[in-house]
Amino acid sequence: MLYFASDYMESGHERIFRRFLETQGEHLTAYGSDRCCRSAAEKIRAACECPEAEVRFLAGGTQTNQLVIDVLLKPWQGVATAETGHVNTHEAGAIEWSGRKVVTLPGHAGKVDPGELRTLMELWHGDGSREHIVEPGMLYISHPTEYGTLYTRAELEALAAVCRDFSLPLYVDGARLGSGLAAKGTDVTLPVLARCADVFYIGGTKCGALFGEALVFTKNNLPERLLTRIKQHGALLAKGWSVGLQFDELFTGGLYFELGAHAIEMAERLKAGLRAKGYELYVDSPTNQQFIAADDALLARLEGAVAYSFWEKLGDGRTVIRFATSWATRAEDVDALLAIL
Amino acid sequence: MLYFASDYMESGHERIFRRFLETQGEHLTAYGSDRCCRSAAEKIRAACECPEAEVRFLAGGTQTNQLVIDVLLKPWQGVATAETGHVNTHEAGAIEWSGRKVVTLPGHAGKVDPGELRTLMELWHGDGSREHIVEPGMLYISHPTEYGTLYTRAELEALAAVCRDFSLPLYVDGARLGSGLAAKGTDVTLPVLARCADVFYIGGTKCGALFGEALVFTKNNLPERLLTRIKQHGALLAKGWSVGLQFDELFTGGLYFELGAHAIEMAERLKAGLRAKGYELYVDSPTNQQFIAADDALLARLEGAVAYSFWEKLGDGRTVIRFATSWATRAEDVDALLAIL
Amino acid sequence: MLYFASDYMESGHERIFRRFLETQGEHLTAYGSDRCCRSAAEKIRAACECPEAEVRFLAGGTQTNQLVIDVLLKPWQGVATAETGHVNTHEAGAIEWSGRKVVTLPGHAGKVDPGELRTLMELWHGDGSREHIVEPGMLYISHPTEYGTLYTRAELEALAAVCRDFSLPLYVDGARLGSGLAAKGTDVTLPVLARCADVFYIGGTKCGALFGEALVFTKNNLPERLLTRIKQHGALLAKGWSVGLQFDELFTGGLYFELGAHAIEMAERLKAGLRAKGYELYVDSPTNQQFIAADDALLARLEGAVAYSFWEKLGDGRTVIRFATSWATRAEDVDALLAIL
Amino acid sequence: MLYFASDYMESGHERIFRRFLETQGEHLTAYGSDRCCRSAAEKIRAACECPEAEVRFLAGGTQTNQLVIDVLLKPWQGVATAETGHVNTHEAGAIEWSGRKVVTLPGHAGKVDPGELRTLMELWHGDGSREHIVEPGMLYISHPTEYGTLYTRAELEALAAVCRDFSLPLYVDGARLGSGLAAKGTDVTLPVLARCADVFYIGGTKCGALFGEALVFTKNNLPERLLTRIKQHGALLAKGWSVGLQFDELFTGGLYFELGAHAIEMAERLKAGLRAKGYELYVDSPTNQQFIAADDALLARLEGAVAYSFWEKLGDGRTVIRFATSWATRAEDVDALLAIL
Repeated sequence: MLYFASDYMESGHERIFRRFLETQGEHLTAYGSDRCCRSAAEKIRAACECPEAEVRFLAGGTQTNQLVIDVLLKPWQGVATAETGHVNTHEAGAIEWSGRKVVTLPGHAGKVDPGELRTLMELWHGDGSREHIVEPGMLYISHPTEYGTLYTRAELEALAAVCRDFSLPLYVDGARLGSGLAAKGTDVTLPVLARCADVFYIGGTKCGALFGEALVFTKNNLPERLLTRIKQHGALLAKGWSVGLQFDELFTGGLYFELGAHAIEMAERLKAGLRAKGYELYVDSPTNQQFIAADDALLARLEGAVAYSFWEKLGDGRTVIRFATSWATRAEDVDALLAIL
Repeated sequence: MLYFASDYMESGHERIFRRFLETQGEHLTAYGSDRCCRSAAEKIRAACECPEAEVRFLAGGTQTNQLVIDVLLKPWQGVATAETGHVNTHEAGAIEWSGRKVVTLPGHAGKVDPGELRTLMELWHGDGSREHIVEPGMLYISHPTEYGTLYTRAELEALAAVCRDFSLPLYVDGARLGSGLAAKGTDVTLPVLARCADVFYIGGTKCGALFGEALVFTKNNLPERLLTRIKQHGALLAKGWSVGLQFDELFTGGLYFELGAHAIEMAERLKAGLRAKGYELYVDSPTNQQFIAADDALLARLEGAVAYSFWEKLGDGRTVIRFATSWATRAEDVDALLAIL
Repeated sequence: MLYFASDYMESGHERIFRRFLETQGEHLTAYGSDRCCRSAAEKIRAACECPEAEVRFLAGGTQTNQLVIDVLLKPWQGVATAETGHVNTHEAGAIEWSGRKVVTLPGHAGKVDPGELRTLMELWHGDGSREHIVEPGMLYISHPTEYGTLYTRAELEALAAVCRDFSLPLYVDGARLGSGLAAKGTDVTLPVLARCADVFYIGGTKCGALFGEALVFTKNNLPERLLTRIKQHGALLAKGWSVGLQFDELFTGGLYFELGAHAIEMAERLKAGLRAKGYELYVDSPTNQQFIAADDALLARLEGAVAYSFWEKLGDGRTVIRFATSWATRAEDVDALLAIL
Repeated sequence: MLYFASDYMESGHERIFRRFLETQGEHLTAYGSDRCCRSAAEKIRAACECPEAEVRFLAGGTQTNQLVIDVLLKPWQGVATAETGHVNTHEAGAIEWSGRKVVTLPGHAGKVDPGELRTLMELWHGDGSREHIVEPGMLYISHPTEYGTLYTRAELEALAAVCRDFSLPLYVDGARLGSGLAAKGTDVTLPVLARCADVFYIGGTKCGALFGEALVFTKNNLPERLLTRIKQHGALLAKGWSVGLQFDELFTGGLYFELGAHAIEMAERLKAGLRAKGYELYVDSPTNQQFIAADDALLARLEGAVAYSFWEKLGDGRTVIRFATSWATRAEDVDALLAIL
C-alpha cells in the first residue's frame, strides 16, 4: 500500500525519539515550567525574530483552536473564518461546544479576502440590529489553507490591516506551517507571520513530532490566567516538557524547515509527474496537499493500492481526491504512485 | 534537590522510548485505529479479565474526567463525589465549564461512604422539589484517593451495589492506579475493579508513561458517537497510537505492575523511616502519597533541599505536607530525605 | 409617527388584560400546573386536532428556540436551517452559547428546499470523515419565514418526508404564525402544521399577548425531564399561569385567528396601495411583513414620520426596508403611510 | 384549602392589571427602551438614593441569577455562596449549565459569615496550586435568605468590606426583598442595600407582580454589551415594558413597601399564634417564611386542609415544614391555620 492519505499517519522523527531517551532518569518540572519548554520557546522566539513572543505547548490542533478562540473572544463574540475553515468544517463542532459561533466568509481556494472581511465588519457595525447579531471578534485563517493554498505576504498584511482597523485579533492555524514555509515562491517567513498574526501556532503533529503544537502570542498579548484556562479545557499536560522537548529538537539546526522542505520536494515531484501525465490539478496548491478530479475508472485502479483522501463529489460525477506528502514520504513511493496513475 | 513533590515530574520509562524508536519509518493509521491501540486494548482486556471491555486512549487525567462525566451524564444530571474529589477541587472547574454540577458527599480520608451515597439518592428521590434539584447521575471516585487511601474490595462492592440500585454508573479515576494495585494488603485487583466499575481509567502519566491514560468501559457500555465527542472536547489525538504504544509496552511482561510495586516499595521505606523517627503520619496511606504535619522549623529545614507538596494548613499552625514516591524514585533519595527529617 | 417597525411594539389585547383582572385574589399553582395552562392546552390540542399533543408555555421566542434545539438534539448534533433563519442571524448566538452548531442551507426567500436538505444529509452520511463533521440532527424552519413567505402544505409535507427519512425532528418557529394562518390562499392550517411538525410554537408576543409562546409537542415526544431543563435554561416561570391564561383567552372564540386576520387585512391594504403607486415589492410576501427597495429620497421622506425596519443594503445603493402590520394596526395609519409614500 | 405553600402562587395586584389596561392601543418600543422602563428605573434610583444606578428588567429569579453570575465572573472564576444558597440548591444546575462553578461556604441559618469568606479567599490566594483551583470571583447572598433570615446592616457592611478587599463584586438576590425590607427591627433599607451591594435585584414575582425582577447595578458597573448577553441567555423580552410597567406601579406611592409590610404582618400574626400554642420555631425568621418541626400526627392533620412546603427531615423523625405568607394572605386564613394547628 502506498500512503498518501494524510501527513499525520507517520511515526515521529528519530531525533525526537533520541532526545526522549536522553531524558532517562531526569526530573522535569510540571505544566510547562521545565527547561525543555524554556529552551524551545527561546528558539522559536529567535526563529520568529520576535523576542517578546510568549510560547505555550499543547497536544493537538483542534484543542489549540478551541482554546485560542475561547480565550481571544469576549463572551458575546464569534470567530470569522472562511466557510471552508477547519474550525467550521472538521472539528466536530468543538468551537460551538465551547459556546462560540463561527461566522463564515466566502472561501477562495480556502482563503479569506480582505475586502470581504472589511465588508462583513462594516455591515455589522452599520446594522441597527447589531445587538442581536453575533459580533465577529477575531479572524481565523489557516496557512496553508485546507486546500493547500498559501497567502502571500501582501495578502497577510492586507488582512492584518483590516483586523487592526476593527480591533480583531488575527489568529493563524499553522497545522501544516512547515510545508507552507518551504513552498516554492512563498514570501511568507516565520518573522513575517509573527509580525502579521497576533497569535499563531506552529504545527508539530504533521511535521515530524509525535504530537504537539507550539502556540505563539506575538504582541505582548498573553491572555490572563492562560494556564488555568488550558486546565479548564482539559488541555493541560502534566508532562508539558514532552511537547517542549520535541519543539526544542525541531528548532535545532533547522530540522523543522528541513522536514517541511522534504514534504515540498515530494509534492513537487508528484505535481510534475501528474502534469506530465496530463492530469489537471483541481487546485493550484504550492504545498504538500495535491488535488485531482478522478473518474470512477481511476478510483478503481487506486483501490487497495493507494491510500488517499476523499475531498468532494463534482457535478460531473468525478471525485476530487487528495494526495498528501509529508516529511517522511519516500521518493520511490511517489514514483510508484505516478506509475499507477 | 530531592524530588518528592509529585509523581508526574519524572521522565518516562526507557522501554517506552525504545518502542517509539522502533516505529521509525512506520505508517500508522490515525485516531486510535492503529495496531498499537488494538494490541494495548487486547492486553488490558486480558489483565482485567474482561473480554468485552472497550478501551480508548486519551492524553491526560482532567481531560479524561471531563469527557467521561460529560458522556455518562444526561444533560440535567450532576456527578456525585467526595468533597475532596479531584474533579471538585483541582481541575480548575473543568467539569462545570462543560456544563455539569459536582454534587458533593463527605470525604472520609478521601473516600465516599456507601451509606451516605444511598442517603443522598433517597433524599433526592423523596424531595417534592426534586425537579429543581440536580439529580446525581453517576458516582466519581478515585482509587487511590487524593489522600493516598484505598477502597477495600468490600467497599467497592458496596458502592457498586448502591450505584446499581439507583442506576448510577460508577466511574473510577485511576490516575495512580499502578500504586494502588501494588499496595500491601489490598484485595482490589484489576479484575475486581473491572467488575465493580462501569468505567475507569488506568493512569499512565504517573506510572512510567510519557503521557496518556487508558479509559476502560467494562459493561458493553461504550457511549454513542464517542470518537466525535472526544473530538468535540478537543481531545482527539491524530497520532492516537502514541498513547496506545505506551500502554502496549506497560502491559507487556507486567511492567505496569512492576513500576507500581517500586513506587510502593519506596513509600514503605519512607513510612518505616518516618515512624522510626517518631513522625506521626497524617493519613494512614498504603500508597505512594505520604502525609505528615510539619512545624515551621521542619519546613525551614526542607527549604531548598527537598521538593514536596503543600497540602493544607492545620489549626495548630502546622502544615500538612505530602511526599510522593514514584516508579522512578531512588532508594538513596528516600534515605537522604529521611536523613534531613 | 406612524409605527410599522415591527409587530411586537404594541400593547396587549384588552381581553387578555380583563382576564388578568378576573384572577384577583385567586390562588394559582406554580410552574404551569395551574388551571389556566390546562385549559389553554386543551383548547390548543382541539385547534390542532391533535389530542395527544403536549403543550408548554414559555416567555419568548429566542428562549423557546434555544430550549427546543438543546433538548431535541443529541449532544454531538447541530441544527439545520436556512442561512437566513432567525436562529442563525438574529439571536445573538444563543444557540451556540448553549453548545450547538447551526448548520446552514441556502435560503429561498427564507425557505428551505427539501431536495437541498436531502443532499445535505446524504453528503453527511456518505462522508468518510463524518465523525469529524457535525451531524445535522433536526431541522428548524420558520413559518412565516423571516421574509414573510409561507410554505405550502405540499412543501411542508415534502420537508417532513425528508426529515422522516433521516430521523430528523422537524421544528417550526411560529413567532408570526397567527399572520401565517390567516394569509390569503395558504393551505397550511394548525392541524396541517401539527401533522407535519414534530414540535412547533404558536407565537403570542406578536399576536395580541403581553408576552409568551405556546410550545407544542405533537408526536408523543415530550422530552425527558423537560421542566428541569426549562429551569436549567433559566426559563421556568413561577407564575406559569400568566402565559397559560393569555393563550386560554387567545384560543377562546377564535381570537387568535381574528387577530392574525386583521394583520393580514392591513398588510393587503398596504400591498394594494404600494402596487397602485407603482412600488415593486422586494419579496412577494403574503403575510404581515412587506418589503420594498427604497432610494435615499424616499428614506428622507420617511425620516421622522414613519417607523420601519432596515433590512439590507442593495448593490445599486437602494435599501430594502420592511413595513410590518400587526393585530393592532389601524387602517387610517396604513392610509397615512401610503399618502407619504 | 388554606394556601401557605409559597408566595408565588397568588395572582398579581389589581393596580398592576389596571395599569396594563391603560396601555390599550399604545405603541411601546421594544427591549426595555420604553417609557415604562425609564420611569420605573427613575423611581427605583430614587428609592435607592442611588442616582447613578442602572436598572434592567428580567422575567424571573433563576434567569436573573444565571445572567448576573455569567456576566460578573471572568471565565475562569466561580461564585461563592452559602451551601444553602438558592443558586447551589434549587436552580436545577442553571449556574453550572452556563459554565460556572458554585463554591460553597457554610450557611448559618442561610447566611454567609464574613470571616469565613475572608478565610476562603486567603486560602485560595495562599495556595501554591491555586491555578488549578477555581478562584471565587464574586459573592452571592440572598436577603432574606432561603431560611427567612436577614443580614443586619453591620453584617452587610462587613461582607462588603471583605469583598472590597478581594475585589469581589457583592451580588444580592432579593427575590423576597419586599418582605425583608418590612421586617420588624431590620436596619437594612434599600439605600443601605444599594451602598453595600454592587448588584442586586428587587423581586417582583413574590411581591405583587405578575412576573419580573428589577436588576440594579449600583456602582457605575453596567456590564459591557449587557443587552446582547441577555439575548444570548434567551432572556430578552421583546415587550420589556411589561416588566417595567409593573415596577413603575410597585414603586408608585410605596406600593412595594406596603405589600411587603402586609406579608410581614401576616407572618407576625402567625408567629404569635404559633408561640401561643407552644410551637417552637425551627428558625427565628423575621420575614414571611416561618418554619416548624412537625411530627407525623400534625402532618396528618394538615393533609388536605393546608398547603405548606416540605423543608427537610430531622434525625428524630420530625419534618421541618414551611408556611409562607404573602402580600395577598388574608388574616382569616392565618387564623384558620392556627385553629388547625
